Amino acid sequence: MKKNILVNKKSKTQLTKLSELGEFEVINHITKNFKIKNKSTVHGIGDDAAILDFQNEKVLVSSDMLIEGVHFNLSYMPLKHLGYKAVVTNLSDIYSMNAVCTQITVNIAVSNRFTLESLDELYLGIHAACQKYGVDLVGGDTTSSNKGLIISITSFGSIKSKSIVKRSGAKHNDLIVVSGDIGSAYMGLQVLEREKEVFVVNPRNQPDLTQYKYLIQRQLKPEARKDIIDFFQSVDLKPTSMIDISDGLSSEIKHICNKSNVGCNIYEDKIPVSDELISSCEEFNLNSTTVALSGGEDYELLFTIDQKDFDKIKNNPDFSVIGHIISKNDGINLVTKAQQKIPIKSMGWNSF
Amino acid sequence: MKKNILVNKKSKTQLTKLSELGEFEVINHITKNFKIKNKSTVHGIGDDAAILDFQNEKVLVSSDMLIEGVHFNLSYMPLKHLGYKAVVTNLSDIYSMNAVCTQITVNIAVSNRFTLESLDELYLGIHAACQKYGVDLVGGDTTSSNKGLIISITSFGSIKSKSIVKRSGAKHNDLIVVSGDIGSAYMGLQVLEREKEVFVVNPRNQPDLTQYKYLIQRQLKPEARKDIIDFFQSVDLKPTSMIDISDGLSSEIKHICNKSNVGCNIYEDKIPVSDELISSCEEFNLNSTTVALSGGEDYELLFTIDQKDFDKIKNNPDFSVIGHIISKNDGINLVTKAQQKIPIKSMGWNSF
Repeated sequence: MKKNILVNKKSKTQLTKLSELGEFEVINHITKNFKIKNKSTVHGIGDDAAILDFQNEKVLVSSDMLIEGVHFNLSYMPLKHLGYKAVVTNLSDIYSMNAVCTQITVNIAVSNRFTLESLDELYLGIHAACQKYGVDLVGGDTTSSNKGLIISITSFGSIKSKSIVKRSGAKHNDLIVVSGDIGSAYMGLQVLEREKEVFVVNPRNQPDLTQYKYLIQRQLKPEARKDIIDFFQSVDLKPTSMIDISDGLSSEIKHICNKSNVGCNIYEDKIPVSDELISSCEEFNLNSTTVALSGGEDYELLFTIDQKDFDKIKNNPDFSVIGHIISKNDGINLVTKAQQKIPIKSMGWNSF
Repeated sequence: MKKNILVNKKSKTQLTKLSELGEFEVINHITKNFKIKNKSTVHGIGDDAAILDFQNEKVLVSSDMLIEGVHFNLSYMPLKHLGYKAVVTNLSDIYSMNAVCTQITVNIAVSNRFTLESLDELYLGIHAACQKYGVDLVGGDTTSSNKGLIISITSFGSIKSKSIVKRSGAKHNDLIVVSGDIGSAYMGLQVLEREKEVFVVNPRNQPDLTQYKYLIQRQLKPEARKDIIDFFQSVDLKPTSMIDISDGLSSEIKHICNKSNVGCNIYEDKIPVSDELISSCEEFNLNSTTVALSGGEDYELLFTIDQKDFDKIKNNPDFSVIGHIISKNDGINLVTKAQQKIPIKSMGWNSF
């Protein structure tokens, strides 16, 4: 299965070993279709360093690393999707500061099982994400690993100082809002993991994944919510705090509360989940609230707004008000459907 | 041997598994001693993105990835040295644009054989480099790998537009200059590799490496030539082109010539090599010119200057004029001690 993806519909004899080209030719090959789109990119790939010009704006920098076998599994993650997702998840960190993302650098290391054609697939995804989000690829390192694929991306955004939204600005009585729905990316992963097990037992089995399409799409091809940042600007709304949901709602709301020195009540019945999530949770015998709280990888935005700004979001179906900020001493709580108040533990992704 | 370094003089029972702490505690622990030094660092670690402010200066960005077993070997590279070297080699790319380096982000992934104490060692080296070069650690990702240690660093510099030196500015009749001496880092690696082989055969052997001290230091604890950039400023000298020698002189001079659309003559007898390099080359039966041309990892600066600027560097013992720029049609040549002119092939490091 893994092999099929890497061989990429060509016969083995047509494939190009990276060692046939050398580092600089590989870099030239994979970056040749990337065009500069942002005024702030003065000079991209081709010198010791990229040159950027943000004029008087503040610069935002975020960086992440993805390791094959830890953060992704190529047996069900096509390389093109992986490239796309690796970029998108990085951009999400810049959007969650209320900023525009303008550049990325991409460092990759690959083992000798990767061919030029497999790198092409990966960079097709990276290119698609750069196109969609208007981001320039301005540099990076391309090298070899002794095991699998490693991707490390650093992303850059620019913003006027007064527009920056940190995790730390939430205040008493603010509304807690989440975009889109959450938990589906995690359930998509559960479906894919189950199909992988089935495949191991019976490789001839042709799975019908139609009913899980939305969940799988959320896992394999997530989007970053640039549209929400654009919306904020269009209605002149500045959230008081914001974070993206990469590790799960419970973990992220705790970051906001801890950095803002406040507490919160989150209402279980307000947490936005998809119909597909609910039906698959029944099938997998999981609690959909637990999945929504702990799942992660949704890359939705979690933010707080002053109550006076409620009118600006109330008619937008993309937003769910899920709770409000209370004083720190009153804790970080989930109010269950049965009106029980229980402390939220962060149960999100732990790297170690 | 590897184990000794990781156990780090403590008994095994005193060591702390990373899984005992979790990601955020690990990050807090390893970054607590890092203090912000640069005005351009508005907000470092602790939000979705770092916030930097370069005002009207251009921003330089460079990024590199190092993989255990490919780029370094922990059996002779102490973690503290590795942390130091990983930072320094990145800064070198910023200095080679004639800029000051101000920030870095550090992404690391470690397998479960790494303890908190081993990360402490690594970050001691990262901290030492940040202190020495006046650089702020402003972010990064800390995660787990399924094999060994992976380090990906992105570095940031700032510079006034008119001061930027690219690879592409060399022009006919310019002098070609190199700082320090080259080839020693490569020979240091040869010595260490040989000692590792000896160790495998006879672990009780206590090697006497006194005579190789300089070579080993060049390999294990290289420095970036910030002092040269400072010197340029002090004498008001702007090189016409510049690059750092990471892959070997032959590879780097070809980058300059190709980007500048020129050729060059490099004189073999002018290439600066250390006495230790010459004597070890005799011992290892290697040609010292070949080592100096192809060795790499010296992180010296290779640059070109207008002839009228020669007076500004002629009394500085740190510089060697090794040749001059000629027209592209006349090629990229080494003029040997026997006055033979031969084309230079790049024989430097190839990642694949």
